[in-house]
Amino acid sequence: MIYFDNSATTKPYKEVLESFITVSSNYFGNPSSLHGIGGQAERLLTQAREQVASLLKVKPSEVYFTSGGTESNNMAIKGAALLNKKKGNHIITSSVEHASVLAVMEQLAREGFDITYLPVDQDGRVSADDVEKAIRKETILVSIMQVNNEVGTIQPISEIGDMLKRYPSILFHVDSVQAVGKVPLSLYGNRVDFCSLSAHKFHGLKGTGVLYVREGVRLLPLLSGGNQERKMRSGTENVAGFVAMAKALRMTLEKSKQGITDMRKIQTNLRNGLADIEGVRIHTPPEGTAPHIVNFSIEGIKSEVFIHALEQEGMYVSTTSACSSKKKSPSKTLLSMGVPENLADSSIRISLTFDNTEAEAEALITAIKKYANQLRKVMK
Amino acid sequence: MIYFDNSATTKPYKEVLESFITVSSNYFGNPSSLHGIGGQAERLLTQAREQVASLLKVKPSEVYFTSGGTESNNMAIKGAALLNKKKGNHIITSSVEHASVLAVMEQLAREGFDITYLPVDQDGRVSADDVEKAIRKETILVSIMQVNNEVGTIQPISEIGDMLKRYPSILFHVDSVQAVGKVPLSLYGNRVDFCSLSAHKFHGLKGTGVLYVREGVRLLPLLSGGNQERKMRSGTENVAGFVAMAKALRMTLEKSKQGITDMRKIQTNLRNGLADIEGVRIHTPPEGTAPHIVNFSIEGIKSEVFIHALEQEGMYVSTTSACSSKKKSPSKTLLSMGVPENLADSSIRISLTFDNTEAEAEALITAIKKYANQLRKVMK
Repeated sequence: MIYFDNSATTKPYKEVLESFITVSSNYFGNPSSLHGIGGQAERLLTQAREQVASLLKVKPSEVYFTSGGTESNNMAIKGAALLNKKKGNHIITSSVEHASVLAVMEQLAREGFDITYLPVDQDGRVSADDVEKAIRKETILVSIMQVNNEVGTIQPISEIGDMLKRYPSILFHVDSVQAVGKVPLSLYGNRVDFCSLSAHKFHGLKGTGVLYVREGVRLLPLLSGGNQERKMRSGTENVAGFVAMAKALRMTLEKSKQGITDMRKIQTNLRNGLADIEGVRIHTPPEGTAPHIVNFSIEGIKSEVFIHALEQEGMYVSTTSACSSKKKSPSKTLLSMGVPENLADSSIRISLTFDNTEAEAEALITAIKKYANQLRKVMK
Repeated sequence: MIYFDNSATTKPYKEVLESFITVSSNYFGNPSSLHGIGGQAERLLTQAREQVASLLKVKPSEVYFTSGGTESNNMAIKGAALLNKKKGNHIITSSVEHASVLAVMEQLAREGFDITYLPVDQDGRVSADDVEKAIRKETILVSIMQVNNEVGTIQPISEIGDMLKRYPSILFHVDSVQAVGKVPLSLYGNRVDFCSLSAHKFHGLKGTGVLYVREGVRLLPLLSGGNQERKMRSGTENVAGFVAMAKALRMTLEKSKQGITDMRKIQTNLRNGLADIEGVRIHTPPEGTAPHIVNFSIEGIKSEVFIHALEQEGMYVSTTSACSSKKKSPSKTLLSMGVPENLADSSIRISLTFDNTEAEAEALITAIKKYANQLRKVMK
């Protein structure tokens, strides 16, 4: 099996699963319980929070554990919008955000919020100038992803953050779900108020995530109840899952030192290999992209057909983001970049992790060549 | 170790953990992915849903997977209230609900909803008559728990459901988190629209739960995004967790046939043992209670002191619900039942599961006797 769909989900590390099992079996207490079994669980939770904070270079009190990237995005955007609705009803985002941002914006629009969806250039990139031009006195929140999940474009988070220093009342949310371990982000230097992470994108477990919330910033809680997570996210904590997430994050950041270089090399090989194939158009821009994504189309061959062809060789890639892959409509991100609809309908995303090898990439290119020729003949 | 705090959380069954590991290791795909690895995960998710549906005697399309009881309660109550706010702004609940219901009500009250908190009798029981008397033309939702988490009182869900058949426009939410495996509930016969379950209360994993939503009933989604869970709860599904939850539910319901009888016997022994101890007052009513909870006070001894004393013997019980145990205020449930504040401050909850034995209960009673005498002398 050659798995090149790591932006959809990654295989949990063996060590991550081992941590999960140890905690679930031996430290199953409820961290809110007053007795020692609860206390043990609470200490593990505290350690996991400290570890995540230290890895993200923030304070433990700024780390909120959630059920994943979608919850983190919903919690930040809805929580900030609803708490600040008396200050203003205008939110700025981009047209290439993940579904869990765009759907939240649509929901807020129905509740009376006014949403500006910024356009992107042909590389899928938002401009900090455009963000600034969109600002009004009613603007309460800007939400821009760090790395686009479909094409890998890195957004100018530092520039937007620098610009927003002149607008201190506007909150800034960054969806970093696709960036962890691939593109670093200093949360403090960049005036980020909220940052979303999802563990299963970095070899942690599904159902666990983080929302970073800058000290002093408040949200209207999405989940109310027993006041866990310092009243911001109620619900018995998934202690084993969060301990496992902390380990996955540590392993990922350790591996990323060498891993980014390795992935970049494979990415270049993939680009070069694809460039040789007739009818291929690469959508991932050559510069300013994360090292783990290559998005391309083969003219005249529908994505779905191609994916199933590669699957016959035991190779797994995707059409668009997993969360949108069952929609029949072409990728909004590609259309926003000016890719024509027929090409967007043919788009394929290859997404890497640290374990992928150059040999796998070579085998993939060979298979793509073979099926591109075969299928083009069939289609004619 | 003698663990009698099973209403706070239960130890996951070994088989449940094994399922989790198998799925996480071998079927780690994203169910939304179009390829075979995603397809395998999707099939497991479908099977888990079918299994849960079959165990609850409902349709698979009525089962929504969530991150736990708190999310299920928030999703049902906020989702129903916000979707129906144009129809009316009145909600009926009781004064003895779990924090994840009461806190949601307080949040909705700040958003303009009008909440009626029904009183309870000395047994902690709501009356269906009181529910009916509280109904107004603006009433959109009734939310009543099936089993009280602190004292174990069973609420008259069938009676309330029967009465609500005459008010078809009012939605009915039942928090069954403490009931699963202990007190059966037929969801169809009882005109329940929403029902919340939490896996870690029945030997499943933390971070997983269910919201039953009757066919045709809609909610405003709390988590928007990739439209998982038929658009009602977005976010990559915790497939391994939900497969594990389905197994935990099956095992729990299988064990409950004999287990309820066994727990009832231990409960009776505990009551009899406690009745012999000077200064004990039992708050759990003798009739109409779940088989797994005994709540009592020992006059003049603070709960916390007593819990830590029992812990020296390796015995674990709780003060109140885990979710409220770090609050300094006395239990709202007990105060609502008319228990004086000084007694409420001394309350202890013993909560059983199927694995607890008569010998453990006997040892607990012996220890309670010992410490009750010792501590009373110290306090004097």
